[in-house]
Amino acid sequence: MIFKNLFINIPLIIQDTAVIEGDMGMLWMLLSGILVFFMQAGFTLVESGMTSSKNAVNIAMKNLLDICVGSLTYWLVGYSLMYGDTSNGWFFWGGLFQGEGADLFFQTMFAATAATIVSGAIAGRTKFETYAIFTLVMTAIIYPISGGWQWQGSGWLTNLGFIDFAGSSIVHGVGGFAALVAAYMVGPRIGKFVNGEVQPIPGHNQVTATLGVFILWLGWFGFNGGSQLAWGGDDATGASTVVLVTNLAAAAGGLGALFTSWVYLKKSNLSMSLNGALAGLVSITAGCGNMTAPGAVMAGLIGGIIVVFSIEFIEKKLKIDDAIGAVSVHGIAGFWGTIVIGLWGVDGDKGIGLFNGGGISQLISQLIGATAYMVWAIILSFIVFSVLKYTIGLRVTEQEELQGLDISEHGSIAYPGKRERE
Amino acid sequence: MIFKNLFINIPLIIQDTAVIEGDMGMLWMLLSGILVFFMQAGFTLVESGMTSSKNAVNIAMKNLLDICVGSLTYWLVGYSLMYGDTSNGWFFWGGLFQGEGADLFFQTMFAATAATIVSGAIAGRTKFETYAIFTLVMTAIIYPISGGWQWQGSGWLTNLGFIDFAGSSIVHGVGGFAALVAAYMVGPRIGKFVNGEVQPIPGHNQVTATLGVFILWLGWFGFNGGSQLAWGGDDATGASTVVLVTNLAAAAGGLGALFTSWVYLKKSNLSMSLNGALAGLVSITAGCGNMTAPGAVMAGLIGGIIVVFSIEFIEKKLKIDDAIGAVSVHGIAGFWGTIVIGLWGVDGDKGIGLFNGGGISQLISQLIGATAYMVWAIILSFIVFSVLKYTIGLRVTEQEELQGLDISEHGSIAYPGKRERE
Amino acid sequence: MIFKNLFINIPLIIQDTAVIEGDMGMLWMLLSGILVFFMQAGFTLVESGMTSSKNAVNIAMKNLLDICVGSLTYWLVGYSLMYGDTSNGWFFWGGLFQGEGADLFFQTMFAATAATIVSGAIAGRTKFETYAIFTLVMTAIIYPISGGWQWQGSGWLTNLGFIDFAGSSIVHGVGGFAALVAAYMVGPRIGKFVNGEVQPIPGHNQVTATLGVFILWLGWFGFNGGSQLAWGGDDATGASTVVLVTNLAAAAGGLGALFTSWVYLKKSNLSMSLNGALAGLVSITAGCGNMTAPGAVMAGLIGGIIVVFSIEFIEKKLKIDDAIGAVSVHGIAGFWGTIVIGLWGVDGDKGIGLFNGGGISQLISQLIGATAYMVWAIILSFIVFSVLKYTIGLRVTEQEELQGLDISEHGSIAYPGKRERE
Repeated sequence: MIFKNLFINIPLIIQDTAVIEGDMGMLWMLLSGILVFFMQAGFTLVESGMTSSKNAVNIAMKNLLDICVGSLTYWLVGYSLMYGDTSNGWFFWGGLFQGEGADLFFQTMFAATAATIVSGAIAGRTKFETYAIFTLVMTAIIYPISGGWQWQGSGWLTNLGFIDFAGSSIVHGVGGFAALVAAYMVGPRIGKFVNGEVQPIPGHNQVTATLGVFILWLGWFGFNGGSQLAWGGDDATGASTVVLVTNLAAAAGGLGALFTSWVYLKKSNLSMSLNGALAGLVSITAGCGNMTAPGAVMAGLIGGIIVVFSIEFIEKKLKIDDAIGAVSVHGIAGFWGTIVIGLWGVDGDKGIGLFNGGGISQLISQLIGATAYMVWAIILSFIVFSVLKYTIGLRVTEQEELQGLDISEHGSIAYPGKRERE
Repeated sequence: MIFKNLFINIPLIIQDTAVIEGDMGMLWMLLSGILVFFMQAGFTLVESGMTSSKNAVNIAMKNLLDICVGSLTYWLVGYSLMYGDTSNGWFFWGGLFQGEGADLFFQTMFAATAATIVSGAIAGRTKFETYAIFTLVMTAIIYPISGGWQWQGSGWLTNLGFIDFAGSSIVHGVGGFAALVAAYMVGPRIGKFVNGEVQPIPGHNQVTATLGVFILWLGWFGFNGGSQLAWGGDDATGASTVVLVTNLAAAAGGLGALFTSWVYLKKSNLSMSLNGALAGLVSITAGCGNMTAPGAVMAGLIGGIIVVFSIEFIEKKLKIDDAIGAVSVHGIAGFWGTIVIGLWGVDGDKGIGLFNGGGISQLISQLIGATAYMVWAIILSFIVFSVLKYTIGLRVTEQEELQGLDISEHGSIAYPGKRERE
Repeated sequence: MIFKNLFINIPLIIQDTAVIEGDMGMLWMLLSGILVFFMQAGFTLVESGMTSSKNAVNIAMKNLLDICVGSLTYWLVGYSLMYGDTSNGWFFWGGLFQGEGADLFFQTMFAATAATIVSGAIAGRTKFETYAIFTLVMTAIIYPISGGWQWQGSGWLTNLGFIDFAGSSIVHGVGGFAALVAAYMVGPRIGKFVNGEVQPIPGHNQVTATLGVFILWLGWFGFNGGSQLAWGGDDATGASTVVLVTNLAAAAGGLGALFTSWVYLKKSNLSMSLNGALAGLVSITAGCGNMTAPGAVMAGLIGGIIVVFSIEFIEKKLKIDDAIGAVSVHGIAGFWGTIVIGLWGVDGDKGIGLFNGGGISQLISQLIGATAYMVWAIILSFIVFSVLKYTIGLRVTEQEELQGLDISEHGSIAYPGKRERE
């Protein structure tokens, strides 16, 4: 009976280390993980809504794949590489199949998020199997290793005093800069740059994109609030405040992009405003435990303004085709959200940022950390995509791309019964 | 360093008054607030699904704006005007930036809801900046002031014995009657009334409208259940019962409208049934802490029946173009839901309604309160829209309206790649 | 005053039996019930997305009807027939209007789920009133009676040692095999089988179908996790583990179907992968409290593989037109999920399955139970649909079917403004 050894001798999950304190802490973590899970639906809608209908099935498949692959790989190896007890400060390891129920569940959803950020940037021209392999490496290795630097508790960035409460750099920065490398290496969609001119390739459903942003915003309350990792007493007040400032920053980010687009593009633009709200959320993710409410509003507002110019810059100056602005929303705003703690962060009643009497040391730590995650993501992604480029290849053929990945990769279309239009 | 004073000297939020008791109460409030937040997505889908595709971007923008503006204004001034300690029974005030994390978050979502109700009624012809200013006034001033009459705890309606547990009048009545004024003053969409005949302007996506109603129904469990403001012991049983009767009333409202439309319109009509479920929810919002389960079913059922006739009446008799039936669903059903407590409400084991031995005094209180909120909403909205009419104007031009607000106001369309049809 | 007796003498709900222990248990049950409620939205999207646009209003109406009818009937009689104190081991009864707030709410959502499973299988040709009556009988009688066999606590299957933690057989098996009978008796859609050849009738929106699956997956965390019926200490760890293994099984099921379709159908197919994730969820529903994590992965993986072949078998061999694969996803995977406990289930540290030293007795119990639910669902559904066939009839006319049920049954179309296409 081969199954006997397989199923009974490997314990369900190793539970000797109680990561989460108390019943209420576990309840909050589990509920937060459930909210973060739902972000996968949000990413699916944002990515598909902001790109062509001929690639909507492919987007849905990639997002489904993220959570399926990520759930298994992060449980198998990712969690151990991130939170293993044995460490040299840069790498961590422990047994396989580690992690307590609610904690492993919560952390798994973060890994899946880091992977899915890349999906949107390279929409419309990337081979499905290429993306599948990248997702596997991302959730099993890239994200967990660098995540341990700060969240394992004895890593080099923790020791440096670096703060990234819920992952502006650890999740969004890593995902966003991996997306930059991916978009650069895969190359632009056909028709995006014609004679050096940028051509708009509009999305196909702004209503579902909007629903997607609302779902992401919703899930973010779990993403940031759950990162308190506890509930009760000061932790209850703390997590509640985290949720409050998360909402304020999102609101400010949405308005920042709305007004920037109104002034700069002459019309209040929905897609920019949606990206602004997301940028506001990313901008508060690192500092949501270290911001006053006005500080959160300012962080989100600036994040929302930055994202408009960053999207323009990456498209027009760098000539990189990031199909949905993922690099700007997650990478650039993630960098901003990390360093803002060094500008006007607080630690309880004490100012730790440059502008409120905290000196420059926190800012330097934040810059080192944010840069470290950026460099790590760029180097590792470059290696993985280089290997993929010279093995199975990165792009579908020109004919397949023009036809749409839904047919070439998956053999069906998103909206049968309609004639397909781009 | 200008930021120093700004970010460190203004405390995050004033926390000297513990509004919520206990860790579990705070958890329930926070989770309820998160559910109520999601209602913004529900409103977006209901409003856009029930109106033309050429205005879907505009609907999405307005709903995004509601939550962005509402989150900031309610935090800045609204909460203080509603729950401030200093009062004369009609107006309340306190410092700026008040409110505890979970409580402020929860209350903010209610303010945003009151604003968003107006959005749908005036869809398809209203200037975006006009709506933006109204939303700001609604969340900063109109809703908070009258909300304090009952929910601050020492207001004139509290002293009168008026009951509105979760806001049939305070939120939905105020939003619904403001929508009535707004729809009247902005005037009907072009083509709605031709030679005195009502012309149907069908929505463009009944599936997303249905999803929107399910999301609203979901969020309402937090809206009503969270209004218990506590969890534990009797509060846990109480909040659970609130959620149960909320669901029963919604179910009865949906069936009430379904069968009414089946008999009255000859076919079981989806859009009426959806509005019936929403009307059932509004009808139990005031009394969800003061209803037996059969009483809740009856309240919701009658609410669902009323809404069918009310929509017809407002359209055919009053000739007011409420694009999605918001006045009927929120205003009329809100009024009904408020007074039904005076008919068959209970307080624990004791009957307080006219039909179960409670006398007429509760009914009179309910009528006074419901009327007060209606009159307040009508007067204040009339003032604001009058000012807007003679300054920046209420409507877009005829050409812009025919083209669709998505292009004229926001420069993009909801479903690029399709030819636009109404 | 006729209302007096009606509303005050019938107590809100009978609360003398405290079903749920503790404040935290009640909170978790209520939140789980709220998550399960949301599954109705998921079913609506999956069913409408996977079928023709000309029947999308009908699908939405049926799902709205399920929750409306189910909420009322299960409260009125279903709960009493399922959990009544008086019993002979096969039938249970108690007073009407039974049930505690959070528990009744949670259980109601399960009844609505059992009903809604049938909706998708018979999409596109069934009379609305026929479905309405079936839903009523399902939630009031069929589901509650057999549910009591195991979940009431003193039923014959409980005494047999049968395990079905969250309802692979009790909910999904009963729904799925009722769907089989319904699809067989109603007959295939026109054009599904032409000269014995199966013709594909593609769905009309794979993006909303994907969103629907994510919503179902989300809701399933409450469906399975809430079935712990408690929170705190071992129950907190237990429910967390339930959620974790539920996610692992869903992920494995999605990958199982994805790779099976890739190999077997030559392309990685979205609709199969989505059904695979759902099958993974159904496969872990009975055993989520009795599975190691590797065991859960294997249960889900096999469930995801089975579903691909089952869908093919039912369509090509049995020539039954199950419009969305509901019989395979819920019935077949439900049967599999029930018996897998007898193969490699555990009870704490002890193996109870055949392959991990537990002997054959548990497997026999599981086979008896799964078969009992299958037979019960088939017989009862056959009786109900037979009665309906010879009274009001099962199908719309050929002309109505070709035109679409949206127009014939409900007098409106899902996407006005577009020309209708299938």
